[in-house]
Amino acid sequence: MREVFQQELREVQERLVEISTLVGDSIEKATRAFNESDVSLAETVIEDDRRIDALAAELDELAITILARQQPVARDLRIVVSALRISASLERMGDMAEHIAQLARYRFPEKVVPKGLRGTFREMGALDVEIARKLTELLATEDPAIAEHIRNEDDKVDALHLAVFDKVLGETWKGETADTVDATLASRYHERFADHAVSIAKKVQYLATGDWT
Amino acid sequence: MREVFQQELREVQERLVEISTLVGDSIEKATRAFNESDVSLAETVIEDDRRIDALAAELDELAITILARQQPVARDLRIVVSALRISASLERMGDMAEHIAQLARYRFPEKVVPKGLRGTFREMGALDVEIARKLTELLATEDPAIAEHIRNEDDKVDALHLAVFDKVLGETWKGETADTVDATLASRYHERFADHAVSIAKKVQYLATGDWT
Repeated sequence: MREVFQQELREVQERLVEISTLVGDSIEKATRAFNESDVSLAETVIEDDRRIDALAAELDELAITILARQQPVARDLRIVVSALRISASLERMGDMAEHIAQLARYRFPEKVVPKGLRGTFREMGALDVEIARKLTELLATEDPAIAEHIRNEDDKVDALHLAVFDKVLGETWKGETADTVDATLASRYHERFADHAVSIAKKVQYLATGDWT
Repeated sequence: MREVFQQELREVQERLVEISTLVGDSIEKATRAFNESDVSLAETVIEDDRRIDALAAELDELAITILARQQPVARDLRIVVSALRISASLERMGDMAEHIAQLARYRFPEKVVPKGLRGTFREMGALDVEIARKLTELLATEDPAIAEHIRNEDDKVDALHLAVFDKVLGETWKGETADTVDATLASRYHERFADHAVSIAKKVQYLATGDWT
């Protein structure tokens, strides 16, 4: 029984890695679509999000099946519950990538990224992509150093998020109202994306250390 | 064993009702603080959110304990897993109320609600409060008619959310950049609050009907 359980846990982990890889692909495409106003790439991201949602739902079913069949207790039980939560956060990260892509599509053929903020959003996007890639690595290896790295990158995203507000509320801001709306929403989505990764990283750290928070 | 389990499930339900009641109080205070620029009320909401977070974390621990002790299967298992998810959504609803309150505090002594949108936000706020109150009733009674009602109210919130964007992007909009930022974020938070309620309502409907989605 124990061996079957370990095998099933490995499958859960593999599926989390698979979903996280897709989320990484999505945020990479979404930020490119956003920065380059590439509407067909944006549509790909929106389409791909359905697959992420479906895989997350399947993973949840697998986790519930494992709970029913294996009746895990103690640490094993918490691992399965953590997997359910990680799956929910990955699903939301996919939604954030989709929302960023949608902004590019709504504003097309206008550029969605407001002048004066292009560098900032390029940087935020690159950080989100980096965070997603590291998250996949973390889910595959459970290396606590990677969790730490993700937290540090998230601090940078938070700083850029504040910088966006400083910019649009500053005296030099010449953006139209649409630019202000786009910048506000886009910045929020980028920031939430990274937040979810940090929350997953905390759960993975528990899996590695048993230190439940 | 079965009786103990039923008793524990009742406790889970009571705690969900308790947290949902607090979330209702929070959104009521948050929207009042937002609409009336009441900064001390805003601070109460921010303070109260810690209690919601703590109660949600305690409920999660209870659910995990029930999983470990009772080893439920089939429908019983799904009920406990649903409780974990409902708790996560309630916790996020509390966060949205807190974010709305924070907007009021950041902008103080300026009014946070942009001119030309006061009626819209009063309406959105009243809908969110109504939704939260109905959600508490739904969690207590599992009456499917209430779930339906919540979905209808959410449609109205979505329509108002779109109306906010129409307004700020329209030609008559005279707001400053800060007004545009506030309106964008506030509208998003109000809309997400209602979304979470709908997602909880779907789960409760499952609990009542066994129709898992």
